[in-house]
Amino acid sequence: MIFDPETLTYNDAGLIPVIAQDAETLEVLMMAWMNTEAVAKTLATRKVTYWSRSRQAFWIKGETSGHTQALVAMRVDCDRDCLLVTVRQIGAACHTGRRTCFYTGVETGSEIELMTPDD
Amino acid sequence: MIFDPETLTYNDAGLIPVIAQDAETLEVLMMAWMNTEAVAKTLATRKVTYWSRSRQAFWIKGETSGHTQALVAMRVDCDRDCLLVTVRQIGAACHTGRRTCFYTGVETGSEIELMTPDD
Repeated sequence: MIFDPETLTYNDAGLIPVIAQDAETLEVLMMAWMNTEAVAKTLATRKVTYWSRSRQAFWIKGETSGHTQALVAMRVDCDRDCLLVTVRQIGAACHTGRRTCFYTGVETGSEIELMTPDD
Repeated sequence: MIFDPETLTYNDAGLIPVIAQDAETLEVLMMAWMNTEAVAKTLATRKVTYWSRSRQAFWIKGETSGHTQALVAMRVDCDRDCLLVTVRQIGAACHTGRRTCFYTGVETGSEIELMTPDD
């Protein structure tokens, strides 16, 4: 079946959420957003390319930090409104220097930092 | 540090995206949404409880299908605008009967079904 990024379901801002998962460890690294063109760029270049909502610009992950994400595979979910990319992550995925953005555990009444930038 | 669901960052509809990951296999199962109260309910009951955007109602995962998600751990990301829940998934996470919603692989120009409901 032919895949066309235009057939995905985007939100009112024209964006679709994207989950990035480490292809080796299967750790969930981060969640960010793509528009139609970012999806096409990611597939064409194999460099995971998000749409930065704050900068309103394409965001080739790691372009300035060197912490790149090489695309291994892309999947779309049953509702076609969320993407999963498995990646080869160089260095830290998180801007705080941690390998994943999900470094804070939460429970009723408490939250705890599970890893530091040096982990 | 005290955790208060009110301190998370919700979108204009009062929702935060939630990634569900199988605690054993580390497979990413689905992405859905919670509001403040769903976050609190999930932590209090250990039954993963989303907010259904189509039904505009709480959605205790598996309540009708039996395909429940028991909360193992919840994490919040660096921007506090996305949650990751690791779960013990009973049966299929996807309404199509597949264990994950991400059963379709996409590449430039093609998409392929990677698993059937029987896998």
